[in-house]
Amino acid sequence: MTKYVYSFGDGAAEGKVDMKNLLGGKGANLAEMCSLGLPVPPGFTITTEVCVNYYAGGKKLPAGVEAEVKKALAAIEKIAGAKFGEVKNPLLVSVRSGARASMPGMMDTVLNLGLNDATVEALAAKTGNPRFAYDSYRRFIQMYSDVVLGIDHYNFEELLESKKSDRGVELDTELTADDLKALVGEYKEKVKQELKKPFPQDVQEQLWGAIMAVFDSWMNARAITYRKLHDIPESWGTAVNVQSMVFGNMGDDCATGVAFTRNPSTGEKAFYGEFLVNAQGEDVVAGIRTPQPLTIKGKEIGGELPSMEEVMPDVYGELVKIYQKLEAHYRDMQDIEFTVQNRKLWMLQTRSGKRTAAASIKIAVDMVAEKLIKREQAIERVDPAALDQLLHPTLDPNAPKTLITRGLPASPGAAAGIVVFSAEEAERRAKEKVILVRVETSPEDIHGMHAAQGILTARGGMTSHAAVVARGMGKPCVSGAGELKIDYAAKIFKAGNKTVKEGDFVTINGGSGEVFLGEVPTVQPQLSGDFATLMGWADEMRTLKVRANAETPLDAKAARRFGAEGIGLCRTEHMFFDTDRIIAMREMIVSETVEKRKEALAKLLPMQRKDFTELFTIMAGLPVTIRLLDPPLHEFLPHSDAEIKEVAKAAGVTSEYVRSRAHALHESNPMLGHRGCRLGITYPEIYEMQARAVFEAASSVAKESKDKVIPEIMIPLVMNSKELEILKRLVDDTAAAVARETGVKIEYLVGTMIELPRAALRAADIARHAEFFSFGTNDLTQTTLGLSRDDAASFIEAYKQKGVLDADPFVTIDQDGVGELIQIAAERGRKARSDIKLGICGEHGGDPASVAFCQKAGLNYVSCSPYRVPIARLAAAQAAIKAKFSKAAAA
Amino acid sequence: MTKYVYSFGDGAAEGKVDMKNLLGGKGANLAEMCSLGLPVPPGFTITTEVCVNYYAGGKKLPAGVEAEVKKALAAIEKIAGAKFGEVKNPLLVSVRSGARASMPGMMDTVLNLGLNDATVEALAAKTGNPRFAYDSYRRFIQMYSDVVLGIDHYNFEELLESKKSDRGVELDTELTADDLKALVGEYKEKVKQELKKPFPQDVQEQLWGAIMAVFDSWMNARAITYRKLHDIPESWGTAVNVQSMVFGNMGDDCATGVAFTRNPSTGEKAFYGEFLVNAQGEDVVAGIRTPQPLTIKGKEIGGELPSMEEVMPDVYGELVKIYQKLEAHYRDMQDIEFTVQNRKLWMLQTRSGKRTAAASIKIAVDMVAEKLIKREQAIERVDPAALDQLLHPTLDPNAPKTLITRGLPASPGAAAGIVVFSAEEAERRAKEKVILVRVETSPEDIHGMHAAQGILTARGGMTSHAAVVARGMGKPCVSGAGELKIDYAAKIFKAGNKTVKEGDFVTINGGSGEVFLGEVPTVQPQLSGDFATLMGWADEMRTLKVRANAETPLDAKAARRFGAEGIGLCRTEHMFFDTDRIIAMREMIVSETVEKRKEALAKLLPMQRKDFTELFTIMAGLPVTIRLLDPPLHEFLPHSDAEIKEVAKAAGVTSEYVRSRAHALHESNPMLGHRGCRLGITYPEIYEMQARAVFEAASSVAKESKDKVIPEIMIPLVMNSKELEILKRLVDDTAAAVARETGVKIEYLVGTMIELPRAALRAADIARHAEFFSFGTNDLTQTTLGLSRDDAASFIEAYKQKGVLDADPFVTIDQDGVGELIQIAAERGRKARSDIKLGICGEHGGDPASVAFCQKAGLNYVSCSPYRVPIARLAAAQAAIKAKFSKAAAA
Repeated sequence: MTKYVYSFGDGAAEGKVDMKNLLGGKGANLAEMCSLGLPVPPGFTITTEVCVNYYAGGKKLPAGVEAEVKKALAAIEKIAGAKFGEVKNPLLVSVRSGARASMPGMMDTVLNLGLNDATVEALAAKTGNPRFAYDSYRRFIQMYSDVVLGIDHYNFEELLESKKSDRGVELDTELTADDLKALVGEYKEKVKQELKKPFPQDVQEQLWGAIMAVFDSWMNARAITYRKLHDIPESWGTAVNVQSMVFGNMGDDCATGVAFTRNPSTGEKAFYGEFLVNAQGEDVVAGIRTPQPLTIKGKEIGGELPSMEEVMPDVYGELVKIYQKLEAHYRDMQDIEFTVQNRKLWMLQTRSGKRTAAASIKIAVDMVAEKLIKREQAIERVDPAALDQLLHPTLDPNAPKTLITRGLPASPGAAAGIVVFSAEEAERRAKEKVILVRVETSPEDIHGMHAAQGILTARGGMTSHAAVVARGMGKPCVSGAGELKIDYAAKIFKAGNKTVKEGDFVTINGGSGEVFLGEVPTVQPQLSGDFATLMGWADEMRTLKVRANAETPLDAKAARRFGAEGIGLCRTEHMFFDTDRIIAMREMIVSETVEKRKEALAKLLPMQRKDFTELFTIMAGLPVTIRLLDPPLHEFLPHSDAEIKEVAKAAGVTSEYVRSRAHALHESNPMLGHRGCRLGITYPEIYEMQARAVFEAASSVAKESKDKVIPEIMIPLVMNSKELEILKRLVDDTAAAVARETGVKIEYLVGTMIELPRAALRAADIARHAEFFSFGTNDLTQTTLGLSRDDAASFIEAYKQKGVLDADPFVTIDQDGVGELIQIAAERGRKARSDIKLGICGEHGGDPASVAFCQKAGLNYVSCSPYRVPIARLAAAQAAIKAKFSKAAAA
Repeated sequence: MTKYVYSFGDGAAEGKVDMKNLLGGKGANLAEMCSLGLPVPPGFTITTEVCVNYYAGGKKLPAGVEAEVKKALAAIEKIAGAKFGEVKNPLLVSVRSGARASMPGMMDTVLNLGLNDATVEALAAKTGNPRFAYDSYRRFIQMYSDVVLGIDHYNFEELLESKKSDRGVELDTELTADDLKALVGEYKEKVKQELKKPFPQDVQEQLWGAIMAVFDSWMNARAITYRKLHDIPESWGTAVNVQSMVFGNMGDDCATGVAFTRNPSTGEKAFYGEFLVNAQGEDVVAGIRTPQPLTIKGKEIGGELPSMEEVMPDVYGELVKIYQKLEAHYRDMQDIEFTVQNRKLWMLQTRSGKRTAAASIKIAVDMVAEKLIKREQAIERVDPAALDQLLHPTLDPNAPKTLITRGLPASPGAAAGIVVFSAEEAERRAKEKVILVRVETSPEDIHGMHAAQGILTARGGMTSHAAVVARGMGKPCVSGAGELKIDYAAKIFKAGNKTVKEGDFVTINGGSGEVFLGEVPTVQPQLSGDFATLMGWADEMRTLKVRANAETPLDAKAARRFGAEGIGLCRTEHMFFDTDRIIAMREMIVSETVEKRKEALAKLLPMQRKDFTELFTIMAGLPVTIRLLDPPLHEFLPHSDAEIKEVAKAAGVTSEYVRSRAHALHESNPMLGHRGCRLGITYPEIYEMQARAVFEAASSVAKESKDKVIPEIMIPLVMNSKELEILKRLVDDTAAAVARETGVKIEYLVGTMIELPRAALRAADIARHAEFFSFGTNDLTQTTLGLSRDDAASFIEAYKQKGVLDADPFVTIDQDGVGELIQIAAERGRKARSDIKLGICGEHGGDPASVAFCQKAGLNYVSCSPYRVPIARLAAAQAAIKAKFSKAAAA
């Protein structure tokens, strides 16, 4: 028969810490603490299975639960030496929810259950403290009515307030026992008014009402939303913990408090917490009185109030022993709750404490030094995504700030600068430090984005052009600030009642989406110390290589600094947006003959050669993957009359001609258009120029450098093997020609991107010509899901809300769709060429869940934006550890 | 040891007809005729394997060929009673190519080989006809020099012409033996001049030179192009036939001719052909003299010249017996070549004759009646694609025509009408019959396309919007007529030196791409008689159902007439382009609130209900698959100021507001944007209105009709099962609501399109909510290949030329990519729901190769444009027969 109820108390427990799935976090930890011999009020846990059955059976409890509860309650009575509902020596209990994962504040709790008009008198008599008894009763009526009977707590708070004002007092504690007794009468009257029946006096009715209410709270709106936000499955259900009450509110030798075994914000190894004398737990949270620090040291931050260390030195000493025992036992920083009843310490909760990224690193590294945990565990304890906080400058938390508006936190980090409204202006005033403000950005703005400290847009989501490019550049960006009204002509923007002119200072926080007026001071990140230690361990453990997506010297240097093992994606098109280059590029594009195109390409060749020379020099000794021109030509087209005139002049043709070419190159769906290797096939001279620039640069760097130059040429948007065959030949021929001319032979690879479903399916053919595959997961997501990254914003939110999508597939790889294609391609590619190198590049390369997928899919490397390289390194280490353990488990 | 040479002659042969792969078509048929006891000059065939080895070995013949040829030549000598190169009784031979598939005129032939200065005299002496001998010798020198030595034939033709003018004669036959002898001298001199060495006198050198020349001709430019156009693999190679010469040019009791055993243009069962007295085969082809008819009956067409039946009645009689024997043996209409040498008939070739679509049907049906072939064979004999010729009106071949320009044959059929330049004008003047002329068309032009007789565009390929929509409508279309310069303002177009004004008559031939001035009379198609008989047999044999893509009553009626078994795709968006509807549609789109949208939808509901009522009435008893709104909303947006004003007025908002909404709805890649079920999820009221219209219409028709109404609701662009789950519930709820209101319960299906790679991969999940899958192969091709149908034109031609693509993937399903996804989806879908109905809709449904694929993939039906339904029916029958045979073969 299924066991539905697990008892604990008096140094023994039926449950233990690894039964969290069944008992919930709170229940499992209470049981564990009991078994450790810590002082835990006796109680029992009704399992999550009961909750699951409760919903499956149309909100009916499974048979047998009632009997088990009765038995478990009797066990509490025996230990506590009191009886539930008995008029002489009544037992009071708390009823609390406790799911598998912590869901703070999302579900319901009832304290002091078991009180009624009779037992309250018994409690008064037994404790000799009628004030305490009636204070507990009025708290119970309010909580129970709110949680179980559905009468809003403000009804009772109003009565309390008017009682206080009647009595001319300010604090609850100033009300007398008689005041409280009268208040209880008013509370009961209120209940009767609202429900047309009296407040339940039957303690069994109270108990079951509270248990059901906890189960019901699993499906309340707050809980549903919280689960959605934190990826907690509805199917888990919650457990219910029923526990003998202990009282922190019985007088001045009573107290209640919360503590962390280490500092959750810095990670410092110092006991840290707060307590309140003569209070119940809820009072600490509610902030009615200012809590006091636990330790004398804590007073440095906390102010003048006396610490627990001073007020109750003996109980404090006991607490210190317990927290040390708990940390040693759990081998992690604990977040604990306790109550002191008449100088006796009771433990009510322990769990792993939440902490900042910085704290998580320090605690993990310290605990390895303390031999509490192994390096693998240290790696697993740090959330890679949280590292983002550490890798960018952040706003000084103590500086005063004036919020203008909020947008999406599109690319983390903080930046301040003067407002400019065009890429040109951004470049012109770059020395003054600028924030580029646009309705939305397009590839033509890239030079301005490079020049700016940060980007702010009125339109576009987390995966808009501005967001993606800014993340790639490691620049802060706030996108989709819908409230912004930008007037390019007047050079101002408005948000609410604030108007900001060009040249005014603003500060953006790309980690929070906030936009502030003026220049808010920032704090620079520290990458040494514990961070460096942890990353070193990660590098030893991971099997996936980590490369960076970078094309500028600045990005390449950042990539090396962040530990990238090469460049996995150099998007050559980004090199063409500088003012002097874009004209030559446009000249090339508007040419209708091979000869004219070659003339324009000849102007671009020395520029490209210089780009690659710089990159190869910075990345000497590491591979540099260069993707030949990818985007549709129309992205480079001139738009304004001035631009058209400029190109016409450079190309020696009329403006009318340039305009008509621009029109002819327009595409309905450029993402699926004349781009990638399709350009290489139709205009081979473009790729030839690029290949020549690569090999000429490689030769010249190889002559100077002692480290090897390792170019890897990547052909984009291949859909069949013939395309690659043709273009590989072109690259090989160019390499051979340059080798003859320079006398330097460069070793290089030629590979392709797998970014179309067809390419994934035909991987076996394609691998015959490819020395590596790089999965272009951005495009592969677009084509597999038929979803344009630029256009998805209009419905992706609705999709998430309606549960159609769990996550933005441009942020985390869609494993069921895109993932299957990657696995198919990896398998077929390896079968055709066993030593083929497999990697991914694109936004997903820096997403921990996607990195874990790449490990599972057996890829060789991931490549991501420089600022996400540490995240990827850590995520890769975690994935490797997981793989090792599951391999060991399988064996 | 491999056998490289196969001999034939004197009533026996080493080869036979089913050895075409090895012996080529000509060689296999010569061997077969020999074995049938027909008079065939003795000879031998060098196999295609030799050709393959020749190229594989760097143009070297495999060892052993020479010895086999020597032996085979000796066999000819024995039968012919003459010796190759012997001065007394010389054997002359022809050397001809002969590939597996017929490649008329693409490769080289040498006749009269074996002549030199000595053997020509012997030939003169033996035949007593020096004129004949020297005529043969001069023909040989010219042919051999042209084919083997690379001296262009015009060099010799010039000498011949000047000889004739010297002698004052007009015809070759008027030259004397001495004239010809002198000419031979001049020819040899010419060769010596060009090559700096004399014409080869060694007959062995001549023979091997000619054999190698035939092999070399396999890779000449003409042959390569022909193979590409006809999908003939290069790897097949060609065979070489060496055969004893017979002479049709030895005097007036000699002749040469070609014949078809039935009329290749009508299929009539009547012997049909031409011959020339005293000539060699080449003379018939060259058209130097007017050929004479074979039969007396043939004179009705051929003119006054005497027929062979009259001139050589005995030989004619023998020929008739032979052709009847051949037809009975091959059980197909034969195309034969013969030569008469001194009243003796020799057969030089037989093969299945090429024929028109009409003839192919008549012959196939007649031969079944004659018990020559079975119905299966009749079905297999007709090329489904050729039916296209028969299903559309065609231009009267006898009418005079003035060509204006040429474009692509985008949608077959002929149409005449006055030129209009806008969809509005087309609608206004529809009664006058109009041809809509546009630079290119877009969805806003659809009402004009409906109103027009035909469409002519200056831009866009075979798969452009104009082409696809026109084919869907069964309307003639010429697209991409690049020479057209359209001036919308002046309402004229120019092509070359011709100018056509609005209101002028033009005629387009969508089958050839031609555009003519004025109104050329047309001939209507006949769908009864043999056509109906054949289609009846096809219907009995096929297992794939055939449905039509149709939304208008006109199309639906056409679909039924052409034998469609239901509608497989009713694109509801096409119903919204009528002038009165588009305003309501636009009003709906620009609404920002659900309430406003519902108001506009309420105006559309009765119109949609009427559409479906008409469709259900026409298709009563057959299923009608209705696809809910699919395209991105921006396709409906107003563009011109007038349109914007109109919508603003209808919606009661400002023009400025409409303009800003239109701007907001703009998408970068609409094909991957906010469309399909994404609209249904975000604006459920749209799909709800459509579902309501369907069920209300179905109820009202069901009340009237004795036949069942069978709606199948199809949700487009699904990428995961959740989308379908949500929308199926919406459809089911609406159906239930209508059933309650009307009291009529309609049986219906809900299914989805599989048109995204992710949907194909997730077919198992999706099938849990789908009663059918319809593969939307247009979109599936776009996403799988990352290829926009609208934008591919700029490089797809280059891709075909460079061998990157074999066929346009929008015309024939890309089996290796898209096909694999279809197979994956079919398999996973069936596994999850064994009775799921699978079909395809889209352009591919009417392409025979794609239909064959659908049979192989195990689909239940194909759906195509009404005018392609008969093509699909026939293709489906062929696919079923093939499947039956390969199943039988496997068993």
